[in-house]
Order: sequence, then structure tokens, then C-alpha cells
Amino acid sequence: MRTLRLILAYDGSRYHGWQAQPDKPTIQGALETALQLFVGEKVVAYASGRTDAGVHAIGQVVSLETTARMPANAFRLGLKTYLPEDIVVREVHEVPSGFHAQFDAIGKTYRYLIYNHAVDLPFLRPYTFWHRAPLDVETMQAATNELIGEHDFRSFETNWPNKASSVRTVTAAKWTVEPVWNLWSPGAEVPVVAGDERMLCFEISANGFLYNMVRSIVGTMIHVGRGKWSPADVRAILQAGDRRLAGETAPATGLYLKSVDYPITWIRPDRTVRPSSAVFGDDGTELDE
Amino acid sequence: MRTLRLILAYDGSRYHGWQAQPDKPTIQGALETALQLFVGEKVVAYASGRTDAGVHAIGQVVSLETTARMPANAFRLGLKTYLPEDIVVREVHEVPSGFHAQFDAIGKTYRYLIYNHAVDLPFLRPYTFWHRAPLDVETMQAATNELIGEHDFRSFETNWPNKASSVRTVTAAKWTVEPVWNLWSPGAEVPVVAGDERMLCFEISANGFLYNMVRSIVGTMIHVGRGKWSPADVRAILQAGDRRLAGETAPATGLYLKSVDYPITWIRPDRTVRPSSAVFGDDGTELDE
Repeated sequence: MRTLRLILAYDGSRYHGWQAQPDKPTIQGALETALQLFVGEKVVAYASGRTDAGVHAIGQVVSLETTARMPANAFRLGLKTYLPEDIVVREVHEVPSGFHAQFDAIGKTYRYLIYNHAVDLPFLRPYTFWHRAPLDVETMQAATNELIGEHDFRSFETNWPNKASSVRTVTAAKWTVEPVWNLWSPGAEVPVVAGDERMLCFEISANGFLYNMVRSIVGTMIHVGRGKWSPADVRAILQAGDRRLAGETAPATGLYLKSVDYPITWIRPDRTVRPSSAVFGDDGTELDE
Repeated sequence: MRTLRLILAYDGSRYHGWQAQPDKPTIQGALETALQLFVGEKVVAYASGRTDAGVHAIGQVVSLETTARMPANAFRLGLKTYLPEDIVVREVHEVPSGFHAQFDAIGKTYRYLIYNHAVDLPFLRPYTFWHRAPLDVETMQAATNELIGEHDFRSFETNWPNKASSVRTVTAAKWTVEPVWNLWSPGAEVPVVAGDERMLCFEISANGFLYNMVRSIVGTMIHVGRGKWSPADVRAILQAGDRRLAGETAPATGLYLKSVDYPITWIRPDRTVRPSSAVFGDDGTELDE
């Protein structure tokens, strides 16, 4: 048996999330079907976490065991034949036996994109959340800073109470203003969609995330950006431990699982010893973002 | 009656092109349905040309006549309520009576995007054509230069012979290499999809286009970019006037109607006199790109 580590990008639009379900299209279902067709045996694919319905991935990590012997890149190309076009295996690496994408993860980074402009753009619609009113990014960053560090995030979790702890450590959370990809603009000579068109990019890293945590933080920060709430209000919401006080859950269209962190000994595709430093996975059986 | 000029962006993925057809989703059908619901009267919408099934638009121009009296921007916002999310009215202007989006057009610009990388990216899939092998853009530009000027383009027209002339004047045609929008990349710290990832952007302007003209030019240039054909071969294909000699029709996913040109007197949203300089529209009843 070989253990493989796959890096997946997918457009989550038409899927009911990662986890296989009977009679519903899921990422895991599509991947395991492709694996069975390609390698000729039933293979179970474990992801770093279960992305929710409609959520995208830039760098989801999956582990699996197989008897198939082809080189990693041939494995990637062969799998492409059997996968739908909205799921792409970006990389395949052989890793030490025992590697598990979920239980060995020590942190994750999510990205959330808000298209902030008076007029919508159809090509961004499936991959961002469109917000019409101007947003004050500086105040949103100040409010976001209140969340950095170890906190009980139950105010930002759907379906609280969960079975395990809702304490997580947010290691980084940053808003940036990015240009809109100019290949979808008509160009400087044509005055279509003039004005302050911009993309807000939110990136947040933590040792683990609660269900809908990023989306409820984003929904809260939109109220901050519009001037309804202050950073002090966000601190109070966090401390209250009450989901009803925070903002709405922002749409899945804007959310991407960007990357997953592992102890460095696991990232190298060689036979290094498995470390015992995994601190992630206390809520291993829960639904992730 | 007022005459309005609309600028539309749309994701053509799920439409059978611009022109209304019974029992099939079309851009014109969706727009005219929304117009009727919004203004309460039947309104006929005329586009600059009939985009084909699956083709996108960044700046399609539409003209219509209506008795509705609301300001142009209120018209835009109201229409949004009744339009599906993949069709967006970017601008509405009142224009002189008699303006016709198709018959007054004097030129158009199309854009075609090729995602040129070893690995596909799901978020680009609906909006580009993915080509795995490296393409030599300099040679593609040299070959494209053979097409600039007035020529009979029947070698690049599907369904030749058409009813009217297949002579068109290409005023500009340029390939550029653009960066891939970095918000879909995992970032510098993660080595996913490393390497020479790039976006080829083809932009072509002409006084009119034949059916599938841009897409068959792109299909031809891909053979040039891979070294199969030279610029001299492309000149010979053009001169032969035989569609079978040119390359395949590239997929609609990569094609965008970027902008439409009108005599300057029509562009200003005021009551200037209609000019008689319109040179476009000799094939007014044909299917466009």
C-alpha cells in the first residue's frame, strides 16, 4: 500500500459539500468514483476537513491509500480523465505511511472575497459575494484584530453547542483591497463600470475552524464596514458567546479553503518519522467550514 | 416614446445565445421578460449583434424604445430585480430617438482568453479555454498580423457561403500575456501550481465579424503557437478562402464581446443629429459571433 497526498482545487457551486451523501453530488463522492474507475479498487479519500455546500477550495488536502503503482504525476493525469471539470487535482505526492489529511493538520487558512461595487459583474458572481455599499476596510481590520488569539468562538458558530470545545486560536486575520481582474473590464477607453470598483480579500488562519466560523465573521464585519458596529461591539459579541448577537452567515460563493498546514516532516514527500505534534483534530468528526 | 441604450455584461454559459427562441433560455428572452415585468409593456430589445450559444459579453450594447419615464439609473436598478444574476445591466443612457444598437454599430471588439498552463483551474473553466501545452505568443502575433486589414475572411467563417459579403476589415488584433488573477492562487508560501502559469489574452477589432470568425482564428493560432503552422501558412489559409484549411473553432467559454463602437454623435446621451456614417450592418440579419 502507498499513501498519497493530493492537493485539490474545486468549484463548490454545484456540490453539497465535501462529504459523500447518497443521491447528492459531493466532492468526496466524485473523487472516490474517479479513483475507483482509475485504479480499479475502492479507495477512501480523507480531506483535511469537510467543506460545506457551495464552498470552494484552492488547496484542499486529501490523503488516501492505494495499491496503484503509477508515478504520482501519472496518477494526477489519469484521475483527470474521470473527474468532472470543476474538480482539479493540482498535485499528487507520495507521503510516509500513516499520513492522514485530517488528523495531522495543524492549521488552515481560508480566503473570502467580497466584490465591492455599485454594479454586479456576472463572471464574479459564482466566486465572490457582491456587496453594493462602500465598506470601510480600515475599521473592519481594527474589528478583526479583536478576534486574533485564543478565544471561545461560539458567537461565530452555527449550531452551537457542539460536542467539543469551541475554543480556537486565530493566528492571522487580514483584509486587503485587491484590484479586480482587468480582463473582465472593458478597458480604459470605454466608460463602463467606472468608479471605485474593488475586491476585498479576507484571509484568516487558525488551528481549526468551527462550522460557519469564517462566514459569520465576514457577515459581522460587513456591519462594521457599513458603520453599524465598532471594534468594541465586536469584542462584546465575541465575549458574549451568543451566535444571535453576531452578523449573518455570509454566502458560500465567496469562501475558499486556501491551504492546510502540516508539521514540516509531513510536507516533505519522503519517509521521515511521523511527529507527535499534531494539535488539530479535537473536533475531528465535526463539520468544518 | 424614449429610446434607451443599455450596456450589458453576461455570463453566456447557460444560454443559447442572444436571440430569443421558443423553449430555450436566451439573453434576449430573459431581458425582454424582465423589461415586460418592470415597465408593464412589451418591449423589443435590439442588440449590436447576436452572440452565439455560450459566448459571454463584457459590453454588449442594446437599444430599445419604451414609454417608461423613470430616470436611467432607476431603470437599471429596477431591471436588476427581474433579471437572472448572470445578466447584468451595467449602464442605461437615454439616447436620441432612432438610435439602433445593431444598424448604427461601426465596429466591435472581441476578447478571447486562453489559460495556458499544465494544470487546469476550476474557477477559470467557465470563462477561458484551457490549453495545456506551451504556446509561442510571438509567432502567434506574427501570424495574426497577416489578418489585419481588409480581407475576404471566408476561411474563418462557419457555414460559408453566407448570403452577403464575407469581406471584413480587421483594424487591430493583439495577443498579450496577462497574469492569472492571484486571488485564485494559494500564495507564494505554498508550492501549489508552481511554474509558468499564464493567461493569453487575444483582442480583435473589426468593422464586423462573420459567424465564428474569432473562434476559428483562435483555433488556427493555437496550431501556430504549437509550431505546426507558420505565419506564411496563415496567409495561405486566408487567401485560399476555404474553411476546411483553418483550425478548429475554439470553445465559446473563452470568448467575450468586449465593446461596440458607434459614431461619436450616438455615444453622447443627448439629442444630437443622427449621422449618416454608419458603415456596419451589411450582414445585419446574420448570426454574429
